[in-house]
Amino acid sequence: MANATKPYSVAIDLGSGALKSFNKKVEVKLRDLRGFFYDRGAVDAAVYGLKNPTVYEYFENSQPSARGQMNFGVTTLNPGKVGSEYYMTRGHYHAKKRAAEIYVGLGGKGIVVMQTKEGRFFHSPISRGRIVYIPPLWAHRTVNTGEEKLSFFYAYASDAGHDYGTIRRKGFAKLVVEKGGRPKIIDNPKYSP
Amino acid sequence: MANATKPYSVAIDLGSGALKSFNKKVEVKLRDLRGFFYDRGAVDAAVYGLKNPTVYEYFENSQPSARGQMNFGVTTLNPGKVGSEYYMTRGHYHAKKRAAEIYVGLGGKGIVVMQTKEGRFFHSPISRGRIVYIPPLWAHRTVNTGEEKLSFFYAYASDAGHDYGTIRRKGFAKLVVEKGGRPKIIDNPKYSP
Repeated sequence: MANATKPYSVAIDLGSGALKSFNKKVEVKLRDLRGFFYDRGAVDAAVYGLKNPTVYEYFENSQPSARGQMNFGVTTLNPGKVGSEYYMTRGHYHAKKRAAEIYVGLGGKGIVVMQTKEGRFFHSPISRGRIVYIPPLWAHRTVNTGEEKLSFFYAYASDAGHDYGTIRRKGFAKLVVEKGGRPKIIDNPKYSP
Repeated sequence: MANATKPYSVAIDLGSGALKSFNKKVEVKLRDLRGFFYDRGAVDAAVYGLKNPTVYEYFENSQPSARGQMNFGVTTLNPGKVGSEYYMTRGHYHAKKRAAEIYVGLGGKGIVVMQTKEGRFFHSPISRGRIVYIPPLWAHRTVNTGEEKLSFFYAYASDAGHDYGTIRRKGFAKLVVEKGGRPKIIDNPKYSP
């Protein structure tokens, strides 16, 4: 399957969102996200109390990082919160900047927050049957604001690369927090543009 | 929506496969495919008899043809035959050769036939819940071998381009025909590599 000089096919359960076959699986636990959530103390408390729960996983069919190839997979993001901040992915810019990404929501409910280095911000709902287009140059992070697992199909250029470091250092311009039982998008006090 | 310097989202019905919003719609009728089916006489008779039926349509969210951008959409391919050959798309190489494409089957039943200019051939089933990865350099054509509409989601680089001319001139190496009530993949006697 990794030999992408040859076509191949894999099965996906479009009901549950489960990808039946993949050559890469990544599990991201709460401790891995310590530098990404606003309230590090709450991360530490949660990691201690809940034995470092899984926040999200992705299941990918990766091709060699070569011009014209594409990777695709499914991300599943658990429901949960750290302090008032909803569980989310790290978020990243593409390392090779000019690379778009497409999400197709398969289950659950959340928000994709997106920003550029020039200070633009955008957010989009994601849920079953919603396709989100993330243009080149836009960092993207997915937030689970629901009570069920959020899952979505994704596709992007296999040589796009992932720049997680910029988000780790500077943060995202906005946070998605629960306020009065509902998600609210607020400015990130720690953000350094 | 065509302004892909900004993110956006659109809805898709994952049950029926209907894309709810798009900026490009193309309808391909039987007469448009005259140069692609093996039996041109059967095309002419069918066009005359059936008033030039629609063979397939695609509904796309196109971005500007620029590096890093991606297009996505849904193709719906009607059931039918011309002589013994099943309804199909024209099929194409990407004009900028190194560009992959990903299909996600949403409904119906068919076969994706793929070939390279160096004489390699591959075919994959496509149906609801089957993802087909088409690497760079592989021409691809979709054939509806079922009795219902075949529909699939697709995504590819927006600057990939479409080379239909090579297929029009040389044909595909193989044909998908009905034989004894079942699809069969046979050599195309008219193929000129």
